[in-house]
Amino acid sequence: MPGNSFGKSFVVTTWGESHGKALGVVIDGCPPRLPLSESDIQNELDRRRPSGASGSTKRREPDKVEILSGTFEKKTTGTPISLIVYNKDADSKAYKDIKDIFRPGHGDITYQKKYGIRDHRGGGRASGRETVARVAAGAVAQVVLNQQGIGITAYTVELAGIRAEQINVKDIDKNPFFAPDIHTAKRMEERIKEIKASGDSAGGIVEVRVTGCPSGLGEPVFDKLDADLAKAVMSIGAIKAVEIGAGMKTARLLGSECNDEIAPDGFATNRSGGILAGISNGDDIVLRAVVKPIPSIQIVQRTIDIHSKPTTISVKGRHDISAIPRIVPVCQAMVRLVIVDHLLRQKTIGS
Amino acid sequence: MPGNSFGKSFVVTTWGESHGKALGVVIDGCPPRLPLSESDIQNELDRRRPSGASGSTKRREPDKVEILSGTFEKKTTGTPISLIVYNKDADSKAYKDIKDIFRPGHGDITYQKKYGIRDHRGGGRASGRETVARVAAGAVAQVVLNQQGIGITAYTVELAGIRAEQINVKDIDKNPFFAPDIHTAKRMEERIKEIKASGDSAGGIVEVRVTGCPSGLGEPVFDKLDADLAKAVMSIGAIKAVEIGAGMKTARLLGSECNDEIAPDGFATNRSGGILAGISNGDDIVLRAVVKPIPSIQIVQRTIDIHSKPTTISVKGRHDISAIPRIVPVCQAMVRLVIVDHLLRQKTIGS
Amino acid sequence: MPGNSFGKSFVVTTWGESHGKALGVVIDGCPPRLPLSESDIQNELDRRRPSGASGSTKRREPDKVEILSGTFEKKTTGTPISLIVYNKDADSKAYKDIKDIFRPGHGDITYQKKYGIRDHRGGGRASGRETVARVAAGAVAQVVLNQQGIGITAYTVELAGIRAEQINVKDIDKNPFFAPDIHTAKRMEERIKEIKASGDSAGGIVEVRVTGCPSGLGEPVFDKLDADLAKAVMSIGAIKAVEIGAGMKTARLLGSECNDEIAPDGFATNRSGGILAGISNGDDIVLRAVVKPIPSIQIVQRTIDIHSKPTTISVKGRHDISAIPRIVPVCQAMVRLVIVDHLLRQKTIGS
Amino acid sequence: MPGNSFGKSFVVTTWGESHGKALGVVIDGCPPRLPLSESDIQNELDRRRPSGASGSTKRREPDKVEILSGTFEKKTTGTPISLIVYNKDADSKAYKDIKDIFRPGHGDITYQKKYGIRDHRGGGRASGRETVARVAAGAVAQVVLNQQGIGITAYTVELAGIRAEQINVKDIDKNPFFAPDIHTAKRMEERIKEIKASGDSAGGIVEVRVTGCPSGLGEPVFDKLDADLAKAVMSIGAIKAVEIGAGMKTARLLGSECNDEIAPDGFATNRSGGILAGISNGDDIVLRAVVKPIPSIQIVQRTIDIHSKPTTISVKGRHDISAIPRIVPVCQAMVRLVIVDHLLRQKTIGS
Repeated sequence: MPGNSFGKSFVVTTWGESHGKALGVVIDGCPPRLPLSESDIQNELDRRRPSGASGSTKRREPDKVEILSGTFEKKTTGTPISLIVYNKDADSKAYKDIKDIFRPGHGDITYQKKYGIRDHRGGGRASGRETVARVAAGAVAQVVLNQQGIGITAYTVELAGIRAEQINVKDIDKNPFFAPDIHTAKRMEERIKEIKASGDSAGGIVEVRVTGCPSGLGEPVFDKLDADLAKAVMSIGAIKAVEIGAGMKTARLLGSECNDEIAPDGFATNRSGGILAGISNGDDIVLRAVVKPIPSIQIVQRTIDIHSKPTTISVKGRHDISAIPRIVPVCQAMVRLVIVDHLLRQKTIGS
Repeated sequence: MPGNSFGKSFVVTTWGESHGKALGVVIDGCPPRLPLSESDIQNELDRRRPSGASGSTKRREPDKVEILSGTFEKKTTGTPISLIVYNKDADSKAYKDIKDIFRPGHGDITYQKKYGIRDHRGGGRASGRETVARVAAGAVAQVVLNQQGIGITAYTVELAGIRAEQINVKDIDKNPFFAPDIHTAKRMEERIKEIKASGDSAGGIVEVRVTGCPSGLGEPVFDKLDADLAKAVMSIGAIKAVEIGAGMKTARLLGSECNDEIAPDGFATNRSGGILAGISNGDDIVLRAVVKPIPSIQIVQRTIDIHSKPTTISVKGRHDISAIPRIVPVCQAMVRLVIVDHLLRQKTIGS
Repeated sequence: MPGNSFGKSFVVTTWGESHGKALGVVIDGCPPRLPLSESDIQNELDRRRPSGASGSTKRREPDKVEILSGTFEKKTTGTPISLIVYNKDADSKAYKDIKDIFRPGHGDITYQKKYGIRDHRGGGRASGRETVARVAAGAVAQVVLNQQGIGITAYTVELAGIRAEQINVKDIDKNPFFAPDIHTAKRMEERIKEIKASGDSAGGIVEVRVTGCPSGLGEPVFDKLDADLAKAVMSIGAIKAVEIGAGMKTARLLGSECNDEIAPDGFATNRSGGILAGISNGDDIVLRAVVKPIPSIQIVQRTIDIHSKPTTISVKGRHDISAIPRIVPVCQAMVRLVIVDHLLRQKTIGS
Repeated sequence: MPGNSFGKSFVVTTWGESHGKALGVVIDGCPPRLPLSESDIQNELDRRRPSGASGSTKRREPDKVEILSGTFEKKTTGTPISLIVYNKDADSKAYKDIKDIFRPGHGDITYQKKYGIRDHRGGGRASGRETVARVAAGAVAQVVLNQQGIGITAYTVELAGIRAEQINVKDIDKNPFFAPDIHTAKRMEERIKEIKASGDSAGGIVEVRVTGCPSGLGEPVFDKLDADLAKAVMSIGAIKAVEIGAGMKTARLLGSECNDEIAPDGFATNRSGGILAGISNGDDIVLRAVVKPIPSIQIVQRTIDIHSKPTTISVKGRHDISAIPRIVPVCQAMVRLVIVDHLLRQKTIGS
């Protein structure tokens, strides 16, 4: 069984390679009669495009989305929604030199071992470019979530060791790093410039917050809401850890410090991150995704070629210095897909 | 769609409540002609039983497993393997007092909101007792993994703030905490006694290591090996964070510090945790699961009853002080299920 | 991927062999808060038991069902419902002689080729006894259908060449063949006696009718309602053809003879069998399943043994002369499972 | 859960409406390193195009297929294969008159009831045009089947009451009806002309034969090979009945007449249609699909409009007189998809 589909009620299937003709997604299970036009999706794709910030790739893709099916007179019909984005600025020349060399930290070697063949150009299917399709699907998911008053925000709480000092939601879209604080964004910019100059790359942490989520979402015992969120976020290339609510910290809390006391109007605290026993409790859902540094760096590293011969590599090309900020809308999209899927799944139960 | 099945090629479906007649699991997709008898499974269930250590529940379940189908003359036949464990020592009296009160940190309130009804006795389906079925299924998975020389070890790297000082695999089964170091185990015992005395509970961290795993397992782009591992582990009740390889730390590493250089005989380091681009790279797979404290504590907490009236609660009953150590074989079982599932899935691809 | 589960929203997973310890089913996705007790299920299992009519097996199984999970105070809770039926009267001796010989028309040879091993006793997993689990699950499905006023009737329209002369629903449970007409039932009894005397076996046709089914069920383009019904019914061992509505006859009708004209109060005719473009149209759903003769006959046939040596076989044992009547409640159960599954699936769409 | 995907190991997801921008399919799970280019697919699409025979639609679509992803240097890579066919000759004007009227025998009314909205142009998603995507996917499946020496043939055994007199495989592609006999084809042509002149439409029967299929394919107890074939074929719009092997006739056979005796070199007869207990037995797989007449006819019929007002309809437009011959390659494609899916599924078992 292959693995390019996600969700059970709101099912997305993505396809496409970094330097192929196009990328796209088929969304099966979107409820009918919802308003949907290309601009709803385009706005989100634009947020994922290279920011112009230091450290951002120079590949310039318009990422113009086209709706090929599933809508009629600008409304969803309940049939599959097919979205396509053509690749316009792929430049495969830069990849010729490394076509037979495995980049450390990259999927080159594992794709080769798994399939015995790979499209090496731009990372092929393993490229971050694949997330265009996720963001597009997430935009459609948000149209459904809007009907329920569910909002999903994502922002960079840490980049290259620079931690956000506060969370001002209004600041997020006012800086190229999706930092929740303008002042922090400036410090991030400086740090990224330094790292870029050294030919290296950087990681960070993204936080996603779901507001307005009803209680009752999540399917014990395996498709728990937090389990599906963890999978969704960990399925993004650069993510190496996921935590829900107090997350890592709960290891050192006592029960009396970790439990959220309950009052008639809700929970006194939110260490649970809005999920108890795998089911949403009505509070904000909060998760954090840890982003590793981009593996393609200019600093020389030891590696092997496809004949297992030792060699060294220094990756030039048009690479981002960090998956942040572009990964931020991707995390947001994946959370959207999980919430909408469970929202529809819960309809079969009622309460 | 409900969520009590896990896996696509090696599919396990669990059922049962803490104080119901029995718990069990149906395993569909186990390859035929493998030797399997009840003792293979019983050994693993025995490791999950209350340890006798301080802080362990006093409920005494023999957890005797019976194979009801799927084997013939002690070999698997390729048909579904049904396993059952009867509940023998359930004592529902202790739960009468809290049947209408929601325990903070517990699934009482979310189950009620999701289903509009719940079996309150012993936590019903949300009880840790549900994991008996997971461990039994994991034992069957291990029979398949043994054929491939794949080993899976799990141990407690931290409990109640006490961090393991070293990893001696031989020590793991020689102490009641599955600590990888006898000396650490003693310190854990002392700390747990203190917490027990205070009526509180504790969390910790479990590490799981897969050895002998071939490269090529994991299905891009959504069913990546790390994505499915994250889901598997996060689907265990008490887990609040999952990290792969260097995990959380990668947020602050530079690319040159994070990438594992490659030599003809393998990777120089293993910060990736054995997975690149969602596909196993042949190195050891390493993950850590963060365990929150048991929510049922004797310390008085504020909460509400099912009529939304404020009240307080102090949970007596026969509760563990920490999900560790019993959650250790559960984490191990879930990783077994993921690896065997992807091992079978990869067979449809070859390389 | 294995195949012992059916349905996407109301998921049943069956397990068990003819001469194993027990048979059972796990039902995942049954809505909560519905009244359910063992007698609801037992009644249906009793209808499937050997009838006492001529040609019925002499194996006497009480087929007593036990609910092991998923209910609390006689109501469903939304958690998996596990049902078990122990085998009490299996007699494996009769099968010793044919353990190494493949019975013509039977799955002996294909199970051996597929799995390289098989439980030969009583046909193992390929036995009609497996359908006990289907009937039990169907009984639970009917509890859900009752809430919606959906009724499902099944009856024998033809047995051993004897065609039912009329459809009197009241007669169905008044004769051992589930014939919809007492007079026909008598003729069937006579014909079956003759066939039994000759050591042979017989086939027939079962019709299933769904009343009160709302329009809108069925998921284009692959999970059409008729497609899932065809699969459900064809998955029963002895079925070799399935037709919906006018079925086979439509091959020779003209469009003007086949189309059902539409009036404000419904369709003028029902050649469509209640399904248009894979979606229920609100009319009765009607399908017919063609049942081949039982392959185990006393008449001597040529065959081979497991070493491919030619031999002959005359099957003694305690075999039915026809899968009818016992297959009638099985067809009914499979249709119940499809309708309830699509009823729940449609909830995610609304209209 | 939506229903636009088919298969578990070789998963196809189709999308697109009759008068939308394009139609397409994503194939997930195609093994890597197989030769694949657009011409492999185009040949099959060309067979499905209007034949020029009497009774064929006048809509002229080039049906030019484009591979958008999943291949590299004309070989499959194991990543999703996305295929697209643009609609070029859609003429929605003819549909304006019937946009608010439900055509008898057509999905207009059920789509409206299910989704509360529909793209009425050309039948939208319910159009036979949707099968372009199935045929394209089937062509890719055949590339895999070719590796195993599995061949799949489909032909018209009956059209408008004219039964094929013999099966000459070579004749199939030499006449516009895919009749297996030239002489029969001429009689079909005459009969179709008459029906066309009367403003009516006709049905028929398609037979599909699989040669070279290994034994062991099919997954008991629900995903039996015949069950999945029945679903696959019944999921095609116009099909109302499916039979395997002797099919309908088995109802009136005795066991001694129905069983296929077994010899060391194979089965003496093939009434089973190559499948025993849901598993392929190594003999040819044979099935027949019954095709109802096209519902859109010129003859005046009574119906209602979307406001439930009675009215009449005479459908003009560019309609085929029968789904045969164009449905023949569609049946073939669906069988290809089932066989390839089970071929890959069986790899997880071995024998």
